[in-house]
Amino acid sequence: MSDTPARILPGIDRPQDLHGLSDEELTQLAQEVREHIIDTVGEIGGHFGANLGTCELAVALHSLLDSPRDKILWDVGHQAYPHKVLTGRRDRLATIRKYQGLTPFCCVEESEHDVMGAGHASTSIGYAVGLKEAMRHGNGPDGKVVAVIGDGAMTGGVAFEAVHQAGGLGTPIVVVLNDNGMSISPNVGALSRYFNRIRLNPKWWHAREGVEGGLTKLPGGIGARFERLGPQLKESIKAFWAPGLFWEELDWAYMGVVDGHDVPNLREALREALAADRPVVVHIATVKGKGFAPAEEGGLEGMEKWHAAKPKSIANGAPAPAVKLAPGEAPAPPKPPQYTKVFGDALVRECERDERIVGITAAMNTGTGLDILQKALPDRYFDVGIAEQQALLFACGLALQGAKPVAAIYSTFLQRAFDQIVHDVCLQRLNVVLAMDRAGLVGDDGPTHHGAFDIAYLRPLPHIVLMAPRDEAMLVHMLHTALTHDGPIALRYPRGEAVGVALPDTPVALPIGSGEILRTGADGKVALLGYGSGVGKALEAAELLREHGIDATVADARFAKPLDAGLVAQLMAEHELLVTVEEGVLAGGFGSAVWETLSDAGLPSRILRVGLPDRYVAHGAPALLHEEVGFTGPAIAQRILAAVGAPDSVGAA
Amino acid sequence: MSDTPARILPGIDRPQDLHGLSDEELTQLAQEVREHIIDTVGEIGGHFGANLGTCELAVALHSLLDSPRDKILWDVGHQAYPHKVLTGRRDRLATIRKYQGLTPFCCVEESEHDVMGAGHASTSIGYAVGLKEAMRHGNGPDGKVVAVIGDGAMTGGVAFEAVHQAGGLGTPIVVVLNDNGMSISPNVGALSRYFNRIRLNPKWWHAREGVEGGLTKLPGGIGARFERLGPQLKESIKAFWAPGLFWEELDWAYMGVVDGHDVPNLREALREALAADRPVVVHIATVKGKGFAPAEEGGLEGMEKWHAAKPKSIANGAPAPAVKLAPGEAPAPPKPPQYTKVFGDALVRECERDERIVGITAAMNTGTGLDILQKALPDRYFDVGIAEQQALLFACGLALQGAKPVAAIYSTFLQRAFDQIVHDVCLQRLNVVLAMDRAGLVGDDGPTHHGAFDIAYLRPLPHIVLMAPRDEAMLVHMLHTALTHDGPIALRYPRGEAVGVALPDTPVALPIGSGEILRTGADGKVALLGYGSGVGKALEAAELLREHGIDATVADARFAKPLDAGLVAQLMAEHELLVTVEEGVLAGGFGSAVWETLSDAGLPSRILRVGLPDRYVAHGAPALLHEEVGFTGPAIAQRILAAVGAPDSVGAA
Repeated sequence: MSDTPARILPGIDRPQDLHGLSDEELTQLAQEVREHIIDTVGEIGGHFGANLGTCELAVALHSLLDSPRDKILWDVGHQAYPHKVLTGRRDRLATIRKYQGLTPFCCVEESEHDVMGAGHASTSIGYAVGLKEAMRHGNGPDGKVVAVIGDGAMTGGVAFEAVHQAGGLGTPIVVVLNDNGMSISPNVGALSRYFNRIRLNPKWWHAREGVEGGLTKLPGGIGARFERLGPQLKESIKAFWAPGLFWEELDWAYMGVVDGHDVPNLREALREALAADRPVVVHIATVKGKGFAPAEEGGLEGMEKWHAAKPKSIANGAPAPAVKLAPGEAPAPPKPPQYTKVFGDALVRECERDERIVGITAAMNTGTGLDILQKALPDRYFDVGIAEQQALLFACGLALQGAKPVAAIYSTFLQRAFDQIVHDVCLQRLNVVLAMDRAGLVGDDGPTHHGAFDIAYLRPLPHIVLMAPRDEAMLVHMLHTALTHDGPIALRYPRGEAVGVALPDTPVALPIGSGEILRTGADGKVALLGYGSGVGKALEAAELLREHGIDATVADARFAKPLDAGLVAQLMAEHELLVTVEEGVLAGGFGSAVWETLSDAGLPSRILRVGLPDRYVAHGAPALLHEEVGFTGPAIAQRILAAVGAPDSVGAA
Repeated sequence: MSDTPARILPGIDRPQDLHGLSDEELTQLAQEVREHIIDTVGEIGGHFGANLGTCELAVALHSLLDSPRDKILWDVGHQAYPHKVLTGRRDRLATIRKYQGLTPFCCVEESEHDVMGAGHASTSIGYAVGLKEAMRHGNGPDGKVVAVIGDGAMTGGVAFEAVHQAGGLGTPIVVVLNDNGMSISPNVGALSRYFNRIRLNPKWWHAREGVEGGLTKLPGGIGARFERLGPQLKESIKAFWAPGLFWEELDWAYMGVVDGHDVPNLREALREALAADRPVVVHIATVKGKGFAPAEEGGLEGMEKWHAAKPKSIANGAPAPAVKLAPGEAPAPPKPPQYTKVFGDALVRECERDERIVGITAAMNTGTGLDILQKALPDRYFDVGIAEQQALLFACGLALQGAKPVAAIYSTFLQRAFDQIVHDVCLQRLNVVLAMDRAGLVGDDGPTHHGAFDIAYLRPLPHIVLMAPRDEAMLVHMLHTALTHDGPIALRYPRGEAVGVALPDTPVALPIGSGEILRTGADGKVALLGYGSGVGKALEAAELLREHGIDATVADARFAKPLDAGLVAQLMAEHELLVTVEEGVLAGGFGSAVWETLSDAGLPSRILRVGLPDRYVAHGAPALLHEEVGFTGPAIAQRILAAVGAPDSVGAA
């Protein structure tokens, strides 16, 4: 009929540029957005599958709405790349997740079209209620409010709390439930399982019986026939009402299921929903990895593999061929294992030794290394969904019955369960092990994901023991220590590659609260006391100090609580300056614990604290971020030299 | 027919003593438990209404179960008095909530029948899943697990997370949904509202349409008649299925509604539920204050009034008459107002000045003083339910749209929203005010309710400003300060009576981070720097020190973040010893912030920290608890004298 149509995306500089386009043009635009993402993310790496699933949705929403007066909130935001492309950031997509480039999720400071930022799931509905209620109360210009949330994120309790509030208030917001099929299958399975289950004795169903009685008295013989038809009709009727009743019982209107890749249908559904003066959920079905065959046609495995794309993994819209070694070229030397993998392997071995041990994850199967446990000992593995609070209450229940739960949760996500740690785990001194992966600066995922606060927020709690390994061998010992200890205990370890030391054949339990001197200096000037990843930095700094004529002592505290008070006192007594090194915020952190210990003992101190600053650190490669905040051997050495040279100016930056 | 039956309760020393009793005897026993509670709590004061509602339930559960092998978990536990009476604590009920007496909620250390402790709501189902899964995996003896949870507690997101997990696993536990009618009314209202609402255009309801089409094709003419009956039949059928569908969609079996005051019916329902090999919810209706006419027949007002009973408020099973003044007897002098009331009044005045301000509570209407706002300006008042996380996300949304939300949440309950503070409020620097009532030791409610940790857990967060008023006038100024500040800001104040100073006519905004010297000492020996309620203690201590020849300086830091670095440096420079006084844990607390400030400035320090110890403090009158932990003027003065007399032994206990 016609030539290849002219490309539309190059002319889209702001979302209002979508307003005049036809359904056909919008459909074409969505495909252009998809291709732009495949090309770009396939080259640079980044979140991939979920973004291919939201191309039509982003186009449909922006074609109907007037952003930023109208608000579109993307839960978590790793599905928001199409939104970024359509809101003036098309040509900067290639910088995403890079240092000083576009942020990995949404970010209020990056664009007026990013209404809220979020790297943790399940928050978008809560914001939406607040935004719309503020408008209803006369704050700012009125507009429509839409939250886009995945089916996985709906398991987070706070999403339920928000649904409940909006239903109660009748807040006219639209939630797009972006159901990408990876979990719609089990949902449907559960529902169909339900119909087949043996019923409990129904004589207690008083309320229903009353209604049932009423039904049989309906006029025109319908009642009697209804009764005769019995279960068959009932089940049909239930199937008829069931898909939306969860929502409708909470006073939401339910629309669905809509094909999330059909722009005209999507637009028509959204237009209806936006016109309603009440909370509406639009349930859409999308395909993770849509339009990229290896993901779309690869089944669950394909979708999982292509959740994120590695740099240079795609060429010409297809997986890039593996780079072959040239004849005679040596393969790259093996890298040290990831901490995550060391943890996962070690947990399996502990589980094999002690049948009371179980592992718990909150929807971070591979991220925590618990996929290794799942494969090795599936009945010792629990995934509670995106539900960190429940992960810990579940652990408490297990511990009360004599099991030994290991809750493997990223440092940043554990913040969600803070009250359960205070009010349940620690108050009752339960045998719960917290394994905090991603402690410290995590890199590309940025400020929502850095594990900057856990030392400071856990240290004030009574009864808890806090540990951090300096290398992967110590991680193995510490996990064993945790599982032989009576009471709550937590260990933190960084994202990424370990140090490269040999792993122990048999782990040994460390004495609780015992540190270790790694290197004894001769001149009594400087002692460095590291914690976790801070130990390596301390050793580096000590090497550099040697070039400046300072022979520093280096110790590994191993425990932040209880601290090795004897070691701390000895280090301070034998040196002019005690330098603490931790990959966490300084306020209330490990360095302050060292001072508190000396102060409690009535000892004088001169302490230089090295750690993370009192601000949120942006995203970028960890090495760049460490450089930026001064968490490197050279930066530490320089500060020590300044302090030793000018004793009056010691302090933390 | 017969004489008054012999009393049964005196013979119940352990729950197994219920096993041989008949339905009639159990019914009588429940009434005896009720009378015991009315007599005892009416005399000594304590949680009241909810406990009168669970007498039959506690009897029914213990008659069927073998505690502690079988587990009964009481959510929150202020409904667990009947359980305590039946499990060997009958004669100690009169000590409940008193110092060293029975604990106010459940407590694992108090009784083997208290399976878990909880003062925060919504946790019981989560524990139940863990306990039962542990049993299924061979840990400890197998047994039944029952969680009793109120309808209010079901709004907490973590309860939903637990329901979701149990449904997924098929964990055979029983949840008794104790619906006490105070909130069943609005629930039912919402559901009936639902049927009357204008429907959205149904053409999007594809799935349902398919089924509807199928129905009309049913044999025997039923289909056509079904179609003709239309909405009427549909609504009847929905009413028939609706009560349990919320649960059934999550793969729970639903039984209800059962009369929670009918022992035989309750037992039959529970027996069925306990026999099922899957998660079952038994929805029971109870009356808060059952059996005590002023509560039971007093409507919502009566129930709310008698949620807790005041000491000596009941005599002979009826409200005690008001004590009349003897002729010529002077009425007691008026007491200072409660901080809560000062806050509530001040917030109303701020709202009157600035229409952007709104107040948010998480189901603590009177406890936070927001009832005053609700009455004065109902459209500026929001109650999100027991949902602290959503309280803050809602506040974030409001703030993004230009409103000024004040979230009034107890210090201890704010722990539930820690991640929202880190990841949403502070990261995005939003104008959210956190008003933390119940900061410090709260008294009778004990360790689950003490506000011991908020200074330590908030201080590490970037962007946040932390304040604490020393008296009610400063509270008014600080609330005003918070509402004129740009960015996140929190203030903490204690439970109970304020100091008794005059309130300002017009509040003024304090310069952020400015402290204030209240009293200048002459001898350069000791400076006390108080924070919040610590200021009063510091002044008391200074008075006592004068008797020992020390003329101490006293300052009010007012802000814990940012600290007044100039003031801190000046105090340290001009005195031998700087004493910090805070009503919070010392690890990472205000005192450590003072040292960090001096250390960052390269200044030497000699600091004595006074605050709460590194353990959970029990329940009891605040004065007794303050005595126990040394948070009193005399105790502080004594420690200072010891420190000044023996400079080498300065430290925090």
